[in-house]
Amino acid sequence: MTGVGPLLEAIADVGRAPSGGYERFAWTAHDLTLREWFAAEAAARGLSLVVDRAGNQWAWWGDPDTDGPGVVTGSHLDSVPGGGAFDGPLGVASAFAALDALRAADVVPVRPLGIVNFSDEEGARFGLACLGSRAVTGTVGADRLLALRDGVGDSFADVLARVGGVRLEHYGRDDEALARVGVFVELHVEQGRYLADLPPEEEAPVAIGAAIWPHGRWRVDLAGEANHAGTTPLAHRHDPMLDLARLITDVRAAAEHAGALATLAKVDVDPNGVNAIPSRVRAWIDARAETEDAVLAVLGPPPTAATKSALGGSGAGIGAGAGGGLARWQPVEESWTPATVFDPALAARLADVVGRPGSDLPAPVIGTGAGHDAGIFAAAGVPTAMLFVRNPTGISHSPAESAEAADCAAGVRALTAVLTTLLTDAPAPSALPFET
Amino acid sequence: MTGVGPLLEAIADVGRAPSGGYERFAWTAHDLTLREWFAAEAAARGLSLVVDRAGNQWAWWGDPDTDGPGVVTGSHLDSVPGGGAFDGPLGVASAFAALDALRAADVVPVRPLGIVNFSDEEGARFGLACLGSRAVTGTVGADRLLALRDGVGDSFADVLARVGGVRLEHYGRDDEALARVGVFVELHVEQGRYLADLPPEEEAPVAIGAAIWPHGRWRVDLAGEANHAGTTPLAHRHDPMLDLARLITDVRAAAEHAGALATLAKVDVDPNGVNAIPSRVRAWIDARAETEDAVLAVLGPPPTAATKSALGGSGAGIGAGAGGGLARWQPVEESWTPATVFDPALAARLADVVGRPGSDLPAPVIGTGAGHDAGIFAAAGVPTAMLFVRNPTGISHSPAESAEAADCAAGVRALTAVLTTLLTDAPAPSALPFET
Repeated sequence: MTGVGPLLEAIADVGRAPSGGYERFAWTAHDLTLREWFAAEAAARGLSLVVDRAGNQWAWWGDPDTDGPGVVTGSHLDSVPGGGAFDGPLGVASAFAALDALRAADVVPVRPLGIVNFSDEEGARFGLACLGSRAVTGTVGADRLLALRDGVGDSFADVLARVGGVRLEHYGRDDEALARVGVFVELHVEQGRYLADLPPEEEAPVAIGAAIWPHGRWRVDLAGEANHAGTTPLAHRHDPMLDLARLITDVRAAAEHAGALATLAKVDVDPNGVNAIPSRVRAWIDARAETEDAVLAVLGPPPTAATKSALGGSGAGIGAGAGGGLARWQPVEESWTPATVFDPALAARLADVVGRPGSDLPAPVIGTGAGHDAGIFAAAGVPTAMLFVRNPTGISHSPAESAEAADCAAGVRALTAVLTTLLTDAPAPSALPFET
Repeated sequence: MTGVGPLLEAIADVGRAPSGGYERFAWTAHDLTLREWFAAEAAARGLSLVVDRAGNQWAWWGDPDTDGPGVVTGSHLDSVPGGGAFDGPLGVASAFAALDALRAADVVPVRPLGIVNFSDEEGARFGLACLGSRAVTGTVGADRLLALRDGVGDSFADVLARVGGVRLEHYGRDDEALARVGVFVELHVEQGRYLADLPPEEEAPVAIGAAIWPHGRWRVDLAGEANHAGTTPLAHRHDPMLDLARLITDVRAAAEHAGALATLAKVDVDPNGVNAIPSRVRAWIDARAETEDAVLAVLGPPPTAATKSALGGSGAGIGAGAGGGLARWQPVEESWTPATVFDPALAARLADVVGRPGSDLPAPVIGTGAGHDAGIFAAAGVPTAMLFVRNPTGISHSPAESAEAADCAAGVRALTAVLTTLLTDAPAPSALPFET
């Protein structure tokens, strides 16, 4: 029986940059090393490995094709640039550790257990998050996915062809793989400080996920006039960088006003030359909140004729608080993800077996602003739940991301308890359609 | 005899992007096509072509090794990304057109005339402007130049080796090539509106360059804390984009305060992901002015203990006007170019032959904030002068860059007059050392 610590320790050096952050991008050599590790851990436990049409890895205890659908847990092994050690790998390692605990406790499952490693959850290579889970569920079509390009211009199809192991002509939605999944539980490190900030009397190392917040992404194009930085008088410039400064400030002000999270973290400057006043700056806004109304409030109402007129050509001079909101920047929607509410009946079953240590209080139930493969599966109609493990820094997508060993162990115990009930109880038909 | 219009027309399609801007980067296929065009125009005029150790092309009328040093004119053929048709090519085309005019007028030169095409003046590919003229004069060492890398990671040495025609082991300063140059006159489109904005009674299509303004470039690193944009409360963020917004605003304010040109046109965001609060934003500041004091005034005085203390960790809250200047952003100098004053005696000789049409006024004498190969040669001790042709838009480094046909013809007439005097007069020894 292996604890989660030694499992994570075994991959601690894979894709670690000198900065301490991880660079584990899908289908790179580092990712392939992690996939080999996953396959080896599965083999060491006598599990049968299946790679679905979308390249996700599934390790099965029992045969889901004859005795399924089964109970699935797991997460992903890829990282954002400069990512931490826990976002993804904690869920996969905890899955193996929970399986070991189930066997050590002589649990006799009445249905199969699957451990999944979703490919390219972070979207760091091809720009689309949850690529593997979107592909296998058919949420995004194979043609669009295979045409995505990475930072050096290779298409996803080129990359898959080079790597091998996934047949391009069959790539995409995999009904056989989906039919094996009766219920999915993803354990993940918390990417905020809800648990870390609880008062001592309400302390809890593990929370149950209730929902993934609604989430929108918008692009803003700021037009300028290309010109020579060494010769163009200030008064003759149409410099879109000045608009970018206003937009950054407006996004933060709008987020505070709306009680939402909003971020401007990606920009593309054309031509991005030291001595060239840009012809265009493109910026992306990411906004999330507990309610869809709060996300949309970040954009604010469309500009009125009066604000448009005051705005003039450049967008200068009107703050987000002046009634125009961010709408005056004419943001173009790039994606909109409604709130994902996890299966309430399943969440109630989790609450029955996940408590707080030394307390009669039930485990906290929290929402999250982060996207997860669990959200994709829930939206595709699979009964889905999440468990979050306390993160003392609250930081994620950074080497500072962390989880205490004792909390990781508590996460494995919670997951083991959840899997025990899902693998052995006669579940309510409404919650677990594989029994209906 | 060819006018400048047909010469430019012949290369109008080379490297033109669908946007209308030119993408003529050094040693690319487009640049090689332009070099072939240069060689063909030289051959059509019976000139002998020499490629120096730095890859610059020189076309000689007469033999500078026996009858030199000679009079050199020309410019460059490469462009910035999305550049215009005139910045560089106007000087090369005008050189050929002036040679044709000299011959048509039966001018008998007492010394050779050279026409030069400097390689990679814009620095668009390897990040260093005036690469060819810096290399041939030894202003920057060959080792450093050959190690420069382009946007896809190829070193300049790799690129030269692939292209052929320049021997890597001899690359760099070329004393033989330099010894052939007695005087250098570069004609260039004006990159501002000095001439275009003159009142009708002072109208002039051509100006004489007096100086290149002093010029500095600085880098600013804005530190942040990487974190997940979907889960990190606003109050817990250390988002360097907010500092970028303040820096952009401060740069403009400091430029206005100092009476200088200052530009923040290049940024590098790490990791530049839509949902990742950046761990670092890097920005570059380009500053130029008529005097060195005015350039340095953009940075302002270093922060005092009081401003440092008010500044805190993030640099937030203090504007450039609050006494700290840009120095509080801890800019790191990347380059400093002192003012280049062109040879006054040579400028006086140009003023003798370049006037204003229909007027007794001398031609205007102007400074410029743009760097040129002429500045590199002047700093290397070669008597150097410049002519500027009126640009009605004042815009440069953009498809909107322009020059009227009549003004281009006036430029060729001015250049022809200058070359006539330099090729036939007995020059003052102090101005033209090749006669001493």
